[in-house]
Amino acid sequence: MTEEPCHDIAHLGHVELLTDRPEASLDFFVRILGLTESGREGDSVYLRAFDDYEFHTLKLTAAKTAGVAHIGYRAASEAALMRRVRVIEAMGCGIGWSEGDRGHGRAYRFRDPDDHVFEIYFETEKYVAPPEERPALKNQAQRNHGRGCAVRRLDHLNLLAQDVGAIHDFLPRALGSRVTEMIRLDNGGLGGCWFTVNNKTYDIAYTRDHTSARGRFHHVTYAVDQREQVLQAADVFLENGVAIETGPHKHAIQQTFFLYVYEPAGNRVEVANPGARLILDPDWQPVVWTEAERKKGQAWGLKTIESFHTHGTPPVPGA
Amino acid sequence: MTEEPCHDIAHLGHVELLTDRPEASLDFFVRILGLTESGREGDSVYLRAFDDYEFHTLKLTAAKTAGVAHIGYRAASEAALMRRVRVIEAMGCGIGWSEGDRGHGRAYRFRDPDDHVFEIYFETEKYVAPPEERPALKNQAQRNHGRGCAVRRLDHLNLLAQDVGAIHDFLPRALGSRVTEMIRLDNGGLGGCWFTVNNKTYDIAYTRDHTSARGRFHHVTYAVDQREQVLQAADVFLENGVAIETGPHKHAIQQTFFLYVYEPAGNRVEVANPGARLILDPDWQPVVWTEAERKKGQAWGLKTIESFHTHGTPPVPGA
Amino acid sequence: MTEEPCHDIAHLGHVELLTDRPEASLDFFVRILGLTESGREGDSVYLRAFDDYEFHTLKLTAAKTAGVAHIGYRAASEAALMRRVRVIEAMGCGIGWSEGDRGHGRAYRFRDPDDHVFEIYFETEKYVAPPEERPALKNQAQRNHGRGCAVRRLDHLNLLAQDVGAIHDFLPRALGSRVTEMIRLDNGGLGGCWFTVNNKTYDIAYTRDHTSARGRFHHVTYAVDQREQVLQAADVFLENGVAIETGPHKHAIQQTFFLYVYEPAGNRVEVANPGARLILDPDWQPVVWTEAERKKGQAWGLKTIESFHTHGTPPVPGA
Amino acid sequence: MTEEPCHDIAHLGHVELLTDRPEASLDFFVRILGLTESGREGDSVYLRAFDDYEFHTLKLTAAKTAGVAHIGYRAASEAALMRRVRVIEAMGCGIGWSEGDRGHGRAYRFRDPDDHVFEIYFETEKYVAPPEERPALKNQAQRNHGRGCAVRRLDHLNLLAQDVGAIHDFLPRALGSRVTEMIRLDNGGLGGCWFTVNNKTYDIAYTRDHTSARGRFHHVTYAVDQREQVLQAADVFLENGVAIETGPHKHAIQQTFFLYVYEPAGNRVEVANPGARLILDPDWQPVVWTEAERKKGQAWGLKTIESFHTHGTPPVPGA
Repeated sequence: MTEEPCHDIAHLGHVELLTDRPEASLDFFVRILGLTESGREGDSVYLRAFDDYEFHTLKLTAAKTAGVAHIGYRAASEAALMRRVRVIEAMGCGIGWSEGDRGHGRAYRFRDPDDHVFEIYFETEKYVAPPEERPALKNQAQRNHGRGCAVRRLDHLNLLAQDVGAIHDFLPRALGSRVTEMIRLDNGGLGGCWFTVNNKTYDIAYTRDHTSARGRFHHVTYAVDQREQVLQAADVFLENGVAIETGPHKHAIQQTFFLYVYEPAGNRVEVANPGARLILDPDWQPVVWTEAERKKGQAWGLKTIESFHTHGTPPVPGA
Repeated sequence: MTEEPCHDIAHLGHVELLTDRPEASLDFFVRILGLTESGREGDSVYLRAFDDYEFHTLKLTAAKTAGVAHIGYRAASEAALMRRVRVIEAMGCGIGWSEGDRGHGRAYRFRDPDDHVFEIYFETEKYVAPPEERPALKNQAQRNHGRGCAVRRLDHLNLLAQDVGAIHDFLPRALGSRVTEMIRLDNGGLGGCWFTVNNKTYDIAYTRDHTSARGRFHHVTYAVDQREQVLQAADVFLENGVAIETGPHKHAIQQTFFLYVYEPAGNRVEVANPGARLILDPDWQPVVWTEAERKKGQAWGLKTIESFHTHGTPPVPGA
Repeated sequence: MTEEPCHDIAHLGHVELLTDRPEASLDFFVRILGLTESGREGDSVYLRAFDDYEFHTLKLTAAKTAGVAHIGYRAASEAALMRRVRVIEAMGCGIGWSEGDRGHGRAYRFRDPDDHVFEIYFETEKYVAPPEERPALKNQAQRNHGRGCAVRRLDHLNLLAQDVGAIHDFLPRALGSRVTEMIRLDNGGLGGCWFTVNNKTYDIAYTRDHTSARGRFHHVTYAVDQREQVLQAADVFLENGVAIETGPHKHAIQQTFFLYVYEPAGNRVEVANPGARLILDPDWQPVVWTEAERKKGQAWGLKTIESFHTHGTPPVPGA
Repeated sequence: MTEEPCHDIAHLGHVELLTDRPEASLDFFVRILGLTESGREGDSVYLRAFDDYEFHTLKLTAAKTAGVAHIGYRAASEAALMRRVRVIEAMGCGIGWSEGDRGHGRAYRFRDPDDHVFEIYFETEKYVAPPEERPALKNQAQRNHGRGCAVRRLDHLNLLAQDVGAIHDFLPRALGSRVTEMIRLDNGGLGGCWFTVNNKTYDIAYTRDHTSARGRFHHVTYAVDQREQVLQAADVFLENGVAIETGPHKHAIQQTFFLYVYEPAGNRVEVANPGARLILDPDWQPVVWTEAERKKGQAWGLKTIESFHTHGTPPVPGA
């Protein structure tokens, strides 16, 4: 019998990125990507895109190396949060409760099979725009200053993992995520897997780590409204001396119109436009791509650049 | 305590429009709007946009006058369907089961307070592209021929009602819809109300009927991926002699980039781009617009055209 | 026998606008429209778009009222300049030589039949970007900061005149301009006329002044590369509280994708995208629009807003 | 002393391409690129984009191999044509007069130093749209059907040459072209050179042929109005199984937003958007790119694909 999608988790909430060049990274995210600073605490700066409704979607923390510290998902309610906690505890991967952070209340933390740290929470601080940030239209969280890439909202994350197949089984159990697309390797393993907890076509993706490291980060993506804005973002990067890794181009998988750069600490950042695609079908069957299909490159024939398979954060010496 | 969003209903599935000029209407929807014919039965033609995953999203039926015959929503599962049926029966507005139609299985029908007929169903026929309609990318339902406006998918409907306030109370109960935005009139009543059952910012809207008729139709909207495609659609309409009612412009409410025309039978059709906006917040609070705010016109100052308040289908003699 | 186009005049060079709110106007042109200040002298500030190759294209001068002080066209050479001077002197409308200005050498001034002051010059100061304004690509005059509307270059002017027919005869003689499109009124007169000295579809237009004033200004236009950027400009104006007069929409005449606002002193400013249209035909025949055709409104049916016919600078008391 | 630009030649008029797969090539140009057939004669089909004002801009001729047969430029007048003929005859590269062709009157033919055949003509047949091709706006040559890539107009050609330096000297003398940009190799020679006879930034470019063949063809380019339409063209090619060589991306040189494919006979075709760039400066100084600068790849970092340097038509066996 068909199972309905689980809706205990509402959406990806935020990501905590680490940087060993905190000032340069902050300048990148604010001046070039176009995020706004919501607040600071200790070694962290909290950042948000103009239409993110929560206090922050990016926590940028000074550290000895780049990478991802934790990923936060917001639950649909306190009851939904507790349902997930019970499941996760039963799965044996729970870390326990934290008291929360700037921007949200208590959160339950756990580890995925590759040792990335996740947290789920319900209580959140919704962004209230101060006068100088008040938007012209009241259905928008914050004024759009048009600064830099002027991204609208957090879109998705991509993490690296030793065993993508393990994640494929894990996330649907832990978060109630659905698998929307995946790459099936010739050896039967998974080369990549895309997940969603809602109607977005994906909010997190995992691809195989070609090193033996664990818990590594591939990229964070902020969405713009139009493909033309991705092209304009490329000019913003060009004029600001930010080296573009690859793009703008259209992914075959998920059809995302993409553009990848590295922020100063080396974390990969994507500016993307999803078009009007959504997964509305409650019994969507995952789209499975073969290794042969992937070798055709991206949608319009661009070969996937080598660094896209090898670069992750933190860097792996000798890799 | 915060209630979580209901997810029994997955999404708006289709609309049955009536036309007293069936050949001209069909030509409009296929050649100009860019839909594809999925099949025919009796006086009806079934149509779909290239990335609609179901058999059809528009059923076009020859009749004595224009208007809407019924609206279909797909449930998240058989169990979810039955939960909704029980609620609707208890509400006393149920019509009963139909055996289904081309494209989907049995459906439960009911009436909204303005006498529009709805149906909910779960079993559906997913579109399987014949060879000549097979897309280049397997994550897309059908080949995009780029014909006419080349719309991607059904986006939303707008219906007229005598008492929008009654609908505001009704749809959340019947379908589990959430109210995302509304217009509060100076007299306390509602001038318009926007609803969603998922992460789209709306899938149905109601605005006040200024005549005394019931069950009338305002418009159906198909989405394109980019605002530029809405501009191109305007040129398609221009070159094909289709009179544009209003647009392209940006609505203040919902920020939709819109363009409205009438198909030959007089039913209003919108081509729109939603940008990258989504309602991800599980406890989203409705945005309430006052009459004074609405008088400012659309987002960029365009005054709302008079016919937008008066024209609906079927036409009301003397109105 | 067919006459070839005259090329003595190379292009529209600059316009001097008057403002009785100099600080507010400057803020508009720099922060909102996205121009850069090139220099100041006396009551004037010299401004440029990022890909204008000359020192400035807009001279903004504090004055008691808004309006246009003079219009500059650059000749193709010193010899071409002298050929034009001889013609203009013979026409009897010459004012005489000025010693030049910041940004260009000596200039010959004359009056059009409506008393607008023009000047023609050849010697110019090409913009040399200081380090902080150096573009990433050396074939671009200046770095694109993406500030505000981030316009690329001066595109055209529109002036008001008592007798557009007189201008229709005058500009081809004085500047060697060609008429590309015009509006023929039912009474035989001209309602508007569009002129070019090069392959642009127009660099100056005149429309009929409905008051009895002379020498008035209708608008100055800066071009952006894409129609999507005109839409973004509308959001920039929205977020900055700049009231939009009309647009974005597509003109039927010249097919320009337009957006009109008033800068703080009341001078009308347009942000437009010309698409890829050019007049390449050396014996192009003017396109003549009738009054009846004009009544259809703009390309996509937008009715021309009343103020577009009445508002000019300086304002005319009681008009 | 500064010399003014020569304007004897008004614009690039047409190109005759050869195909050894005439039916497949015709299908490509009409159904996929979106050109319209103007007429046929012998082994040739005459084609045009919807806003080309002449009878045709592409003559497609069946032959034993792909390549370019001749290139046509239109003069500004009969007198200008005769001035050019005198110059070209004096240069010793003239072939002589032809009686003309479908679409234009008598033409004078000559050879460039690499043996490409050019012709110049003045008398032309302006396109008069039959009823079914009549555009909605009278300032447009033909109705835009939105078919395939729906290109607007012929933009430019790119030819291969053994000695680009020789062409650099030749075209300004023969046609009065101006050099707008060029690539200076480390050995002092030219790797590429871009020319224009009007305000377009270029209408013809030459790049070095890495084989020892002469008279070869690199690509023909049709312009679309917006960058978004280049992206859409990529989807048109994708859905129609046309392999994309490279793009969409932005050239560093000339900043053209490009997309390259091969038509069935192997001739390279580009769909491009020039943005709003123009060369208005009458004494524009050529932009010179070094070999080191070119190694940085295209504007946003895309490495130039190897085939772009090697593939030309006709193919060179063993090359």
